[in-house]
Amino acid sequence: MSHPQVLFPQTTFTGPSLLQARRETIQQVTVKAQLKKLRETGQYECFNLKWQPIYDDKSRWPSPPPVYWDSDVAKWIEGACYMLTEQYDVEIDAAVRELVQMICDAQQEDGYIDVYFTVIEPGKRWTNLRDQHELYNAGHLMEAALAHSNYYKNDLLIEVIHKYIKHIRQVFGPGKEQKHGYPGHPEIELALLRFHSVTGNQDAYDLAQYFIEERGNPTGQDGMPYYEWEREQRGDSPWKRPDCYPMHPGLWYSQAHLPILQQKTIEGHAVRALYLLTGVANLVSLDELGIRAFTGKQQYLEAIRTLWNNMADKKMYLTGGIGAMMQWEGFGIDYFLPQGSDEGGCYNETCASIGVMMLAERLLHVELNSKYADVMELCLYNAGNAFAYVNQLASSEKDKNIRAAWFDTSCCPPNVSRLFGSLGGYLWDYGGHGQDVFVNVHLYTTAKVSFQVDEYAIVFEQKSNWPWEGNIMFQLEAPPSANTTVRLRIPTWANGKFTLTPTLKPATIKHGYLALPPSYIRNNKAFSIQIHGFEPRYISPHPYTNQHTLALARGPLIYCVEDVDNPWEQDHFRNVGITVGSPVSEQKCMIDDMDEHYIGLRATGWVRKVNHRSHTEPGQAPGFTVAAEATKEAKELTFIPYYLRANRGGKGHMRVGLLNVD
Amino acid sequence: MSHPQVLFPQTTFTGPSLLQARRETIQQVTVKAQLKKLRETGQYECFNLKWQPIYDDKSRWPSPPPVYWDSDVAKWIEGACYMLTEQYDVEIDAAVRELVQMICDAQQEDGYIDVYFTVIEPGKRWTNLRDQHELYNAGHLMEAALAHSNYYKNDLLIEVIHKYIKHIRQVFGPGKEQKHGYPGHPEIELALLRFHSVTGNQDAYDLAQYFIEERGNPTGQDGMPYYEWEREQRGDSPWKRPDCYPMHPGLWYSQAHLPILQQKTIEGHAVRALYLLTGVANLVSLDELGIRAFTGKQQYLEAIRTLWNNMADKKMYLTGGIGAMMQWEGFGIDYFLPQGSDEGGCYNETCASIGVMMLAERLLHVELNSKYADVMELCLYNAGNAFAYVNQLASSEKDKNIRAAWFDTSCCPPNVSRLFGSLGGYLWDYGGHGQDVFVNVHLYTTAKVSFQVDEYAIVFEQKSNWPWEGNIMFQLEAPPSANTTVRLRIPTWANGKFTLTPTLKPATIKHGYLALPPSYIRNNKAFSIQIHGFEPRYISPHPYTNQHTLALARGPLIYCVEDVDNPWEQDHFRNVGITVGSPVSEQKCMIDDMDEHYIGLRATGWVRKVNHRSHTEPGQAPGFTVAAEATKEAKELTFIPYYLRANRGGKGHMRVGLLNVD
Repeated sequence: MSHPQVLFPQTTFTGPSLLQARRETIQQVTVKAQLKKLRETGQYECFNLKWQPIYDDKSRWPSPPPVYWDSDVAKWIEGACYMLTEQYDVEIDAAVRELVQMICDAQQEDGYIDVYFTVIEPGKRWTNLRDQHELYNAGHLMEAALAHSNYYKNDLLIEVIHKYIKHIRQVFGPGKEQKHGYPGHPEIELALLRFHSVTGNQDAYDLAQYFIEERGNPTGQDGMPYYEWEREQRGDSPWKRPDCYPMHPGLWYSQAHLPILQQKTIEGHAVRALYLLTGVANLVSLDELGIRAFTGKQQYLEAIRTLWNNMADKKMYLTGGIGAMMQWEGFGIDYFLPQGSDEGGCYNETCASIGVMMLAERLLHVELNSKYADVMELCLYNAGNAFAYVNQLASSEKDKNIRAAWFDTSCCPPNVSRLFGSLGGYLWDYGGHGQDVFVNVHLYTTAKVSFQVDEYAIVFEQKSNWPWEGNIMFQLEAPPSANTTVRLRIPTWANGKFTLTPTLKPATIKHGYLALPPSYIRNNKAFSIQIHGFEPRYISPHPYTNQHTLALARGPLIYCVEDVDNPWEQDHFRNVGITVGSPVSEQKCMIDDMDEHYIGLRATGWVRKVNHRSHTEPGQAPGFTVAAEATKEAKELTFIPYYLRANRGGKGHMRVGLLNVD
Repeated sequence: MSHPQVLFPQTTFTGPSLLQARRETIQQVTVKAQLKKLRETGQYECFNLKWQPIYDDKSRWPSPPPVYWDSDVAKWIEGACYMLTEQYDVEIDAAVRELVQMICDAQQEDGYIDVYFTVIEPGKRWTNLRDQHELYNAGHLMEAALAHSNYYKNDLLIEVIHKYIKHIRQVFGPGKEQKHGYPGHPEIELALLRFHSVTGNQDAYDLAQYFIEERGNPTGQDGMPYYEWEREQRGDSPWKRPDCYPMHPGLWYSQAHLPILQQKTIEGHAVRALYLLTGVANLVSLDELGIRAFTGKQQYLEAIRTLWNNMADKKMYLTGGIGAMMQWEGFGIDYFLPQGSDEGGCYNETCASIGVMMLAERLLHVELNSKYADVMELCLYNAGNAFAYVNQLASSEKDKNIRAAWFDTSCCPPNVSRLFGSLGGYLWDYGGHGQDVFVNVHLYTTAKVSFQVDEYAIVFEQKSNWPWEGNIMFQLEAPPSANTTVRLRIPTWANGKFTLTPTLKPATIKHGYLALPPSYIRNNKAFSIQIHGFEPRYISPHPYTNQHTLALARGPLIYCVEDVDNPWEQDHFRNVGITVGSPVSEQKCMIDDMDEHYIGLRATGWVRKVNHRSHTEPGQAPGFTVAAEATKEAKELTFIPYYLRANRGGKGHMRVGLLNVD
């Protein structure tokens, strides 16, 4: 299976583009800044297994920060290795080498590696899978090992992981003496399957399958759900629970309320849910691609489709954000999508949208459907892109529109580094057998991929000014005897409208992809497509969300209003509306000190006057007497792409969805 | 202070009215059915202090049902005594006598009475004020004692309470050896102050004041909040908490997050909040009425006003319901008022709205303002009236519109009995000094009050067909030398419009009350007022609720649609809207088997078609492309008063607020 994290070096970003600009920032600034942060916090040293004063702090129950430190280091190594692949840096190289050596030395005789349960609570290994993160940390170590081996071309970390997997395989499984558990925070499943794909490690595959199939078993251990059983073993009351569990026992938080095959709605912690489903999609795709048979394939694929549809149709924001509920960083009930914390929610963690991208990428190998790529792109350019930990759609006095200094959070920035480091692997899917070659293009930018299908060397290039303009030029280099099929995504918002040059008749779109057959490609090594639909459009969330809002979008970008462009605003645009069909004008803009170019939008909207109430003093019975005419004042509104929000000062007022009615 | 529970016998309901019809049902059916239920559950026997098998069931932590049994019995005694005052019944009389004797016998030597902590967990008295209900039970016993003494004219229970209060006074207080605690569920405060008002017991007053002033002290016991201190004493983890605490430590659930004087928004469990504020308003009014000086009066009155305004303006439904959040049976954030559980909440416990009525009644003694009486009436006829435990504004498949068999819930039906048993005390406030007599009329119905001001015997009567018609006739009997002022509430929805006969010029409305001066009354022993505003009106919740809904109201009644009248409906009226200003017609209706007459409403509304989406298959990226024109189909809609909902079968579909936009 062609994981983007493995294949990305085959893709080169060959010219300027929005994605490439982001990649450069991350390579030049982010990875080093993260390293600085790792050193400041003590994380850099953690694998030396020496006591640190912070380990005494037990105030954050049940998971003090050092519980996750292994994964923070591992994620940094992974992102750093992606960066080194493209651009050597002596400091980064030295740090990776030192950290990897520390990890190797930290491995215990039996193969176990985990700082917290080696140094801080050594007697408590594997006693709280529900809340702790040993298996999650292990998963990230595996991903670091793969990235490390990919760049350094040695098996230093890979060997460590083989040994650790062997140990984990002994601890967990269906055997009488084994624990029938699974990770509270899924991640290891997708990591194990990647590890299996690269190294062929059989235990890795078996463990991943076991964790996926055993998950949610209501009678898994001594007739109980595993997490309930281990809780009883610890002697904890069922009512003693982390704050992210609003009620006991809260198994849904960790995706353990039901076996995956029985879940009909996506629930709980969003990142956990998406990482888990990515692992399941991996398992399915290994069968689909003929790499390894999986008897549950059809059933699990159906389960993923059900949960994907529930998510996209009922639990996803216009920006691709997921996770309305801050308390459990996860999903609320169907259609509960308030725009900000002062309206009842809107957490939308960046990592969760990155999880959506990972899942979408895996699904595109199993069934080519532009709905997955559309959502993947939506997340990439909007909720999954920002250097913000959360991505609310509207600010409030309590939760202003502020770009967090990215290094103050531990989880999302490294994930952004990993994503953008391996981004080349998300652009397209390609391969073939014998003479038959295919390239499925999911994302447009300026980039080139070089790959081999049997004896055929293929080079395929795209050039565009995406996401600002819809024209993309393609160039294929392939031996004359290759039968190459190229499939191009036609985004749903293009409404099937495009102009292909030279033309192809009949040109049919199947599941959102325009297929260019070998006959076309043979005659046109260079061709271009103009994707239509770049005029600004009014979009709204599903009517059942009760939002009654309108937002502006253009191509894959969602727009917002900010007070810096609309300085008259005093109340977070709570009373600001727009009217469907009002003309929208475009404007080339630039943020000088960031050298950031973008297309801004302008439209005439209005401000609602809330003072038309019949109430004369505070504390009267609720209920406005409604008059047929309401007061509105026209206002010129300036919009900026959501991903650029909070970059230019201002008072911190921002909103995506504006009123569409008074 | 003239508590309605003390004064109600001075009022007689002298003719047919909606309120009187409800009172008769409750007297004839409810009180006996509750007695039957008490016997079935074992509650009737609980004060004999014998073990019952159900006491072994510890599955409901921390408060198994027997924890509240004392209060269930006490509330029944109270309601039964109100009923006996009006209509003797041998079975009820015998049961009250037997229960009271059991309670007397259950009192421990030191004065303590509580079944749970005497029989089931005898070693744990006063160890968990936060979750347990000893002081709450004590409060209800006090209220039972007052009702009992009022009807039976003996001090059997009163004596028991004096002894119990003495005991409680020893346990709680500022002294070094005393506990600096206060009840997790407020109630005893208002009960103690009533008890003080009737009996003059000084400990009762002092205890109430102590509980109110100590509440929320962040360093009350050993430098900690009391509930945190007692938790540590019990050896409980801070993360071990009842399901109603979404996060630790959850002090706000029990109104202990801040001292009352520092609270700016009303939070937590709605009934607890309202009972507490009722007690505070009692304390304030005792000073206001010159009965007992309270130095904190102005500050506490300001605090109550702040919290009242926050509640009425930002946390109350159109029906007078409060408590959007089911999990903690309480308040959500400002303006978070979804109509049903499938939209994120709407608990609206009947008892909470009864609490609002109690608070409003107390406040009307302190500052005469129709906003309190308007809300009191709103609750009485809508959310605080039903024999339903919760009062959502819209049904869903999961939460259908069903009238619970009232005897299956323990808390609200007895509260409804108590409210309607003492309802005469809520209609008006009256009194005076010397020649000066006043009557302030808060609620209109058909009733007569007889009272004495010094040597003057006054009889005042009102006759009306309220809430269906706005004409009320009044008749006063008073000695010629009395200077009687009558103040009549002009509800806010009447927009200040009324016709007084004979006329009075100038007739000024002050704080929502029309004052008829002694000169007018002297010349007009009989007079009448026509309150205008009985034409159906469109009302909407505050725009910041994001509801975008319209509801129909008429007089004090809020209306809803039900599928039994609109049988084409299949989806809980989720797509049904009305348009401001559409003509509304009235229709006299009757529910035959209940002999229930009402005025139904009809209007032409519309059904929204949600299928105008641009999406062609499930799971596509969120965001509808919005067309300027939406599809609506006109529909005739039939409305029924909300309080009558779920009485006539049907599929369980109901909604109050309908869409006002597509």
